[in-house]
Amino acid sequence: MIVVLAGGVGGARFANGLAALLGPGQLTVVVNVGDDFDHLGLRICPDLDTVTYTLANLNNRELGWGQVGETWSFMDALGKLGGPAWFNLGDRDLATHVLRTHRLAAGEPLSAIVADFAKARGIAQAILPVTDDPVRTRVLTDEGELNFQDYFVRRRCEPVFRAIRFAGADQARPHPAVLAALADPALEAILIAPSNPLLSLAPILAVPGIAAALAARAVPCVAISPFIAGQAVKGPAAKIMRELGLEPGPAAIAAHYGDLIDGLVIDHADRAELASPALLHTDILMRDDAGQQRLAAEVLAFARRLA
Amino acid sequence: MIVVLAGGVGGARFANGLAALLGPGQLTVVVNVGDDFDHLGLRICPDLDTVTYTLANLNNRELGWGQVGETWSFMDALGKLGGPAWFNLGDRDLATHVLRTHRLAAGEPLSAIVADFAKARGIAQAILPVTDDPVRTRVLTDEGELNFQDYFVRRRCEPVFRAIRFAGADQARPHPAVLAALADPALEAILIAPSNPLLSLAPILAVPGIAAALAARAVPCVAISPFIAGQAVKGPAAKIMRELGLEPGPAAIAAHYGDLIDGLVIDHADRAELASPALLHTDILMRDDAGQQRLAAEVLAFARRLA
Repeated sequence: MIVVLAGGVGGARFANGLAALLGPGQLTVVVNVGDDFDHLGLRICPDLDTVTYTLANLNNRELGWGQVGETWSFMDALGKLGGPAWFNLGDRDLATHVLRTHRLAAGEPLSAIVADFAKARGIAQAILPVTDDPVRTRVLTDEGELNFQDYFVRRRCEPVFRAIRFAGADQARPHPAVLAALADPALEAILIAPSNPLLSLAPILAVPGIAAALAARAVPCVAISPFIAGQAVKGPAAKIMRELGLEPGPAAIAAHYGDLIDGLVIDHADRAELASPALLHTDILMRDDAGQQRLAAEVLAFARRLA
Repeated sequence: MIVVLAGGVGGARFANGLAALLGPGQLTVVVNVGDDFDHLGLRICPDLDTVTYTLANLNNRELGWGQVGETWSFMDALGKLGGPAWFNLGDRDLATHVLRTHRLAAGEPLSAIVADFAKARGIAQAILPVTDDPVRTRVLTDEGELNFQDYFVRRRCEPVFRAIRFAGADQARPHPAVLAALADPALEAILIAPSNPLLSLAPILAVPGIAAALAARAVPCVAISPFIAGQAVKGPAAKIMRELGLEPGPAAIAAHYGDLIDGLVIDHADRAELASPALLHTDILMRDDAGQQRLAAEVLAFARRLA
């Protein structure tokens, strides 16, 4: 049994590599919900959808988000009605959002809907929102506090990042299956995917009980750096860290996770002199499915060595 | 100034013929809302959309409903998620439903949204829901009472029709602009489109104040029969009338509207011996845009002769 904490694209790719190596039921993917938001009355869950689409092999590799074979008639018609154009909703993607919103409104928990959607798409791994309660990432910038998607998509991460908070996190209850997976006697390792530490993984750790469960772990916890030579593979992680006065690289990641991790996987391009955690140097870029599986295998082997 | 009461396809085509003959602002289309319903959390307004798409020349002539150039990715993806397949929602059509639902949830009246959508689509005529309040057609059948779309789409009008009611109609307030149009000193005629008298026009007349305004009219009111030789041009009108023990034709229409109409337009294929209303025999089938305009011109001339 492996638990991986994941955000969007980097987390989804790494989880997909793990899924190819592990048997059905041996992987639990715990996913960030801080990016979730309501748009046009629809509940959008970007990280859950990216993980689900990727594990179902439905992810759009050209775009880096959304579904393969996507069409855009809805956005075209919406534009002609004067509707908002800043957040793209593909026609196929809309089926996810509309059905999810409808079922949430009927009182179903998010996790049950996510599980049904994963099953309908033939996914054999457990995909769990870290909580069924609302956690909403807010970014304090030089232009004031912005909802995450306003910062991330509408403003393209251009405002200077000053601080972050996870509204609702203090009231959120961790999903019981997440705590159960972290306490499972069959658990071999906890992995922290190469997602954005501040935007994608911090809101997972901010849910009460999650960091404590990691701190009480009986198995190795290994994080994969999302940085290569001071640059993020994707997204604004490097820009944000610099705006907070941190140098994006192994030392900042190690300091960020502190005692929560036993090992850190960094790229060959990076160097670090750290007393802890233990380091694994490798090629952290996942270029394709084979690259995902190679990285996943190396990380699993590293975690087993730390046991 | 002309006011036309309209349901879906027949009403939309006739209104489109009138729109081509009358100047901007000279036509008010009062539309049935009894077919409206909520599906997957989205408010669907079939008759308002058919009228709007037709007046915008966006109507799908092959299907007879929905938008031209429609795509179906949403339905394909929805089916793969196990979502309901009985009501088709096109990708372009979804923009209407999602934006309308979102604006309704924010507290905007339906009429304001309809007006904005019509303006965005370049429509110069007034399209008014007969009321902003919910009126929902329920059909009592040999299988029990069904919501209208369950009867009409899901069950394809197969159950035997026994009675109809318009839930909410007694509490509904007619839209003030509808009453104002019916009382406008510039009004020349009131026209009742060749829509289904029982399913499309009765719910308009069931809204308090509408039938009274027609009864108090100072101008001719002319209805167009939706029947040709005992058959409806489209839809279940003839089947329903027979199930109620009525023969679909001029006499049943004249009896249905009674004193509310001064004239009735029927097809060359039909004959009637009636003391009133006055009859106009013509070709009531609207095969194309030219046919819509021909019928509209003949009906306008007939109404003017009755003045």
